[in-house]
Amino acid sequence: MKKEFRFGVSLPQELIEEFDKLIKKKGYTNRSKALADLIREELIKKEWEEEEESVGIITLLYNHHKRQLMDKIVDLQHNFCKIILTDQHIHLDHNNCLEIVAVRGKPKEIKKLADTLKAIKGVKNVGLSISSTGKNLP
Amino acid sequence: MKKEFRFGVSLPQELIEEFDKLIKKKGYTNRSKALADLIREELIKKEWEEEEESVGIITLLYNHHKRQLMDKIVDLQHNFCKIILTDQHIHLDHNNCLEIVAVRGKPKEIKKLADTLKAIKGVKNVGLSISSTGKNLP
Amino acid sequence: MKKEFRFGVSLPQELIEEFDKLIKKKGYTNRSKALADLIREELIKKEWEEEEESVGIITLLYNHHKRQLMDKIVDLQHNFCKIILTDQHIHLDHNNCLEIVAVRGKPKEIKKLADTLKAIKGVKNVGLSISSTGKNLP
Amino acid sequence: MKKEFRFGVSLPQELIEEFDKLIKKKGYTNRSKALADLIREELIKKEWEEEEESVGIITLLYNHHKRQLMDKIVDLQHNFCKIILTDQHIHLDHNNCLEIVAVRGKPKEIKKLADTLKAIKGVKNVGLSISSTGKNLP
Repeated sequence: MKKEFRFGVSLPQELIEEFDKLIKKKGYTNRSKALADLIREELIKKEWEEEEESVGIITLLYNHHKRQLMDKIVDLQHNFCKIILTDQHIHLDHNNCLEIVAVRGKPKEIKKLADTLKAIKGVKNVGLSISSTGKNLP
Repeated sequence: MKKEFRFGVSLPQELIEEFDKLIKKKGYTNRSKALADLIREELIKKEWEEEEESVGIITLLYNHHKRQLMDKIVDLQHNFCKIILTDQHIHLDHNNCLEIVAVRGKPKEIKKLADTLKAIKGVKNVGLSISSTGKNLP
Repeated sequence: MKKEFRFGVSLPQELIEEFDKLIKKKGYTNRSKALADLIREELIKKEWEEEEESVGIITLLYNHHKRQLMDKIVDLQHNFCKIILTDQHIHLDHNNCLEIVAVRGKPKEIKKLADTLKAIKGVKNVGLSISSTGKNLP
Repeated sequence: MKKEFRFGVSLPQELIEEFDKLIKKKGYTNRSKALADLIREELIKKEWEEEEESVGIITLLYNHHKRQLMDKIVDLQHNFCKIILTDQHIHLDHNNCLEIVAVRGKPKEIKKLADTLKAIKGVKNVGLSISSTGKNLP
């Protein structure tokens, strides 16, 4: 069981009132969880900025009718196979596919993969969001 | 076949030189693709801001050892099943799981789902990135 | 004197250890201040999203040698004078000027002003960052 | 006079139609300006990421009634005087002040200053937005 640590915080009264309103609206039932989430978001940004091992989610939007596009995407992913965890494919409609690639590695490599996918002709959009390996994220 | 439209652009010479350097570094082989990508990113932001039907990717990081956590996550996802496209689960290590939920709906609903997942005790981090249905994104 | 409110928070021990490291690096000397800052950042985002009265800082980068550019910028600012608080001009070098416009109003109006400035020929870049009136930000 | 460079771009017809709608709404009267702006935004991000000399705008929100707060802020600014260009002070209301500090230097130093200001007790919020020296931004 993970150990919990209890400590006191002193905040302006009105600030905590406003915060309570906000987190209630977001569905939280207690302050400690909401504060822990804010802290973890800071730690994830830090991991990314300091080039620690991170987890990224790359989303690709493309029209699968483009000739040889899927070959190129698969070929490229093979070059980065050491950092790719999984790949998920969604048929959005007759033309559009969404591919979601989960990646684990140095932020620099993750960005490189995202950039290279983006440059492929036929890829409409590439998004990149960051998460964490969770290892150092209690 | 999609129709291409050719038009002239007039930019400061040095600006296009800097841009050429930048996109070469990012792996692009031609300017039209790089400009099209910048434009599409603007259009995706617009879809999201104007509450048009969008596609979002929600990432959840959690410790699956937390009692009843997975039950809660699955229950909640059922309440939002109309907007959830797929769900992918990655075992990051003995403790940490990454779950990637692809969602299609109004930005407001997508944010609501992300907020509600975030509030569940045991969920360490929730990320949200936006993409597009591609429908209105040529 | 503003009233302080003291309450207990219970967090995973390792999380608070990581947080303590992070905030020490950022120069904080106590946790309560660091937590209060995270909370205020959330409240500022909320003010902006919910179209409450906000404060924005618009930065303009331009070459003042462009003919009639400064006239256009000043003219435009006069149309928005009700929401403009101050305007500061910096000579970056022989050619480049940075103008920093502090604005107070509805997010929608602030974005409108930023967009309109951006569209002026000769303006190289327009940035927009948000702050708060502080009124509801304890 | 800066030299303009004219070149042809080939984009999906519908993409340019959507773009034309978007930029019209934003107040642009021609495509070249809108494309140039998108390119410049990319170049500014690159300057910042690659630790080139940049321009940042730091906004400070605080209650000037806090004892010794203004002394601390001024002291600190003196330690960073080599990178501070200007400082502008706005009285938002009886209690709240907004201070806007324009800074020119390495991104790392600019972030350091912002972090250090943030850690001062009594400072409610610190924002940081980035611009450019304009030197390499045609």
